[in-house]
Amino acid sequence: MEDVEVAPPGPLEIRVKVVSTSICRSDVTQWQSTAQPDLFPRIFGHEASGVVESVGEGVTEFQVGDHALTVFIGECMSCKHCVSGKSNMCQTLGLERKGVMHSDQTTRFSIGGKPVYHYCAVSSFSEYAVVHSGCAVKVSPTMPMDRICLLSCGASAGLGAAWNVADVSKGSSVVIFGLGTVGLSVAQGAKLRGASKIIGVDTNPDKQEKGKAFGVTDFINPAELNEPVQQVVKWLTDGGADYSFECVGDTGVVSTALQSCSDGWGLTVTLGVPKAKPEVSAHYGLLLSGRTLKGSLFGGWRPKSDIPLLVEKYANKEIQVDGLVTHDMPFSDINKALELMLQNRCLRCVIHMPKRQD
Amino acid sequence: MEDVEVAPPGPLEIRVKVVSTSICRSDVTQWQSTAQPDLFPRIFGHEASGVVESVGEGVTEFQVGDHALTVFIGECMSCKHCVSGKSNMCQTLGLERKGVMHSDQTTRFSIGGKPVYHYCAVSSFSEYAVVHSGCAVKVSPTMPMDRICLLSCGASAGLGAAWNVADVSKGSSVVIFGLGTVGLSVAQGAKLRGASKIIGVDTNPDKQEKGKAFGVTDFINPAELNEPVQQVVKWLTDGGADYSFECVGDTGVVSTALQSCSDGWGLTVTLGVPKAKPEVSAHYGLLLSGRTLKGSLFGGWRPKSDIPLLVEKYANKEIQVDGLVTHDMPFSDINKALELMLQNRCLRCVIHMPKRQD
Ligand SMILES: [Zn+2]
Ligand SMILES: [Zn+2]
Ligand SMILES: [Zn+2]
Ligand SMILES: [Zn+2]
Repeated sequence: MEDVEVAPPGPLEIRVKVVSTSICRSDVTQWQSTAQPDLFPRIFGHEASGVVESVGEGVTEFQVGDHALTVFIGECMSCKHCVSGKSNMCQTLGLERKGVMHSDQTTRFSIGGKPVYHYCAVSSFSEYAVVHSGCAVKVSPTMPMDRICLLSCGASAGLGAAWNVADVSKGSSVVIFGLGTVGLSVAQGAKLRGASKIIGVDTNPDKQEKGKAFGVTDFINPAELNEPVQQVVKWLTDGGADYSFECVGDTGVVSTALQSCSDGWGLTVTLGVPKAKPEVSAHYGLLLSGRTLKGSLFGGWRPKSDIPLLVEKYANKEIQVDGLVTHDMPFSDINKALELMLQNRCLRCVIHMPKRQD
Repeated sequence: MEDVEVAPPGPLEIRVKVVSTSICRSDVTQWQSTAQPDLFPRIFGHEASGVVESVGEGVTEFQVGDHALTVFIGECMSCKHCVSGKSNMCQTLGLERKGVMHSDQTTRFSIGGKPVYHYCAVSSFSEYAVVHSGCAVKVSPTMPMDRICLLSCGASAGLGAAWNVADVSKGSSVVIFGLGTVGLSVAQGAKLRGASKIIGVDTNPDKQEKGKAFGVTDFINPAELNEPVQQVVKWLTDGGADYSFECVGDTGVVSTALQSCSDGWGLTVTLGVPKAKPEVSAHYGLLLSGRTLKGSLFGGWRPKSDIPLLVEKYANKEIQVDGLVTHDMPFSDINKALELMLQNRCLRCVIHMPKRQD
């Protein structure tokens, strides 16, 4: 825990006083990764809510005092992808991998004049964060900041995978590998679509009960099986599920997910960011026999266009998010929260930032 | 070339006097494969037309003298997949891999009492072939047998990949790896859907002219490039094609095909049966950024339900097939035809069976 200087927002940027930030697995995955050693010191965190503290030149959408969610991919509303209406891969404000701001490739954080790198151009593990106005979504001040922050990544990613990417149909069968925040949200999305069988696969037996609350109808613990998971899924679904979702972040599971879904129409959606082995591989015969493999980043949602709808659904109690929060902790305990995530002992830990005014 | 005995058709089977059979790459691939050494002696061939010579017990759909196409996957019309309306993976008459008939797991061919194995339960490199009535499609006797045989595999596979599997849209961009019979048929399918850019990729420079006749607008010869193919495709398509098709039968090309299509909505269809390396692999990031990988067997067509429609389109000159035939040869020259296919020196060689009556 260190003091950093946070520069004022540049053109089209806003500075947000972070109110709540939850810890997403990818914060931890990237932190532990040795792939980009040059990008430290670095501030992680991207699932967050806050209050606009100041606005940069040219910002018209936000005013000081607005409540907002930060988002790890932005929407410029004007590039080929943003105007296509079928992509959330904004070409101007896409996933930022170099630890800097999109606009000028520099950082807004520093310690003693030395740059401190960003993460996904958000970096919410800080009392103040500078984000591009295209990477933030205005929300009503009546919404609970410490819960809707989950809609800025994990909960939305899962719901969108079920709704936008797979387009789960009524009466269908679904199998979900990994019942973390994302997997449970896929289950919820499938349930709300009327899927009749929702099979959860997880090596943690505690996930059986948790799964039920999100719509999981059948639970498989691979550690307790004598046969391959895909075999059990085939028995449960008369030949293979209609949809399978890889939410573990293990490329090796993608092949199992493909084998678990049906010939002819089975669809496998891969959502996870792998901790190791970036290559997805599968026997060509799985595809030739009519399966589809589809990837999903942020559940296909376009942040500005779509997230307000999810916030509204939360407000109307049409979707549940609160049940995904297993821990509420003060900012001073963030290292404990990171430790819980590393040990797979939590779903979402929500970090409550100090309320002090500067 | 040997004399074989052909048994009468069993229940629900028909015996067909083969009139024309064209050579498909998979005949050669399977012939050269060392994966199933036990299945020789074996009769290859599956792309064929003929006249029904006799019918087995229970056959009501065919009568002696009917003209028919043989098909390497059947349609029983009653299993879960056949009734689904969205799959051609019939559970009763699916791709036969053991060299026998579906019904009783024995062969209808023999030499001196010893079994001669089938290929895909068709084996049309024979004057007579016994096929399940579910693996044949009745056609009008006015149709030219030596051309519509291509609709029983290659030409249909390509058209179906463009229409059923990818559902190519008007004005879109398409890249096709491999301009053989299947790849050219994908091009034709894309052109008929109104794709505005159809890029053909082939190491054989002769395919540039041939491609034009089937709708290819831009030709890339990877052997003449200094940069990766996907880079050139990205230039030609402002960031990546909307659709890419792997028609080479090389799992290594699947990754290139994925890289050649656009973030956000790009769809890659893999049609080829690989000669080596059965594992398809790709960097997870290609999927995560919104690409879809889909497999296709026989272009998603359900043989009985759909092939009559294609024959009708051929009759109405809505689709071209004749241009895919590069050689017409008598049965006695079949080994020359197989040699041409092995050396990639033909599209389709059509074998004309002797007209003699027994
Ligand atoms: Zn996240
Ligand atoms: Zn954009
Ligand atoms: Zn074929
Ligand atoms: Zn069937």
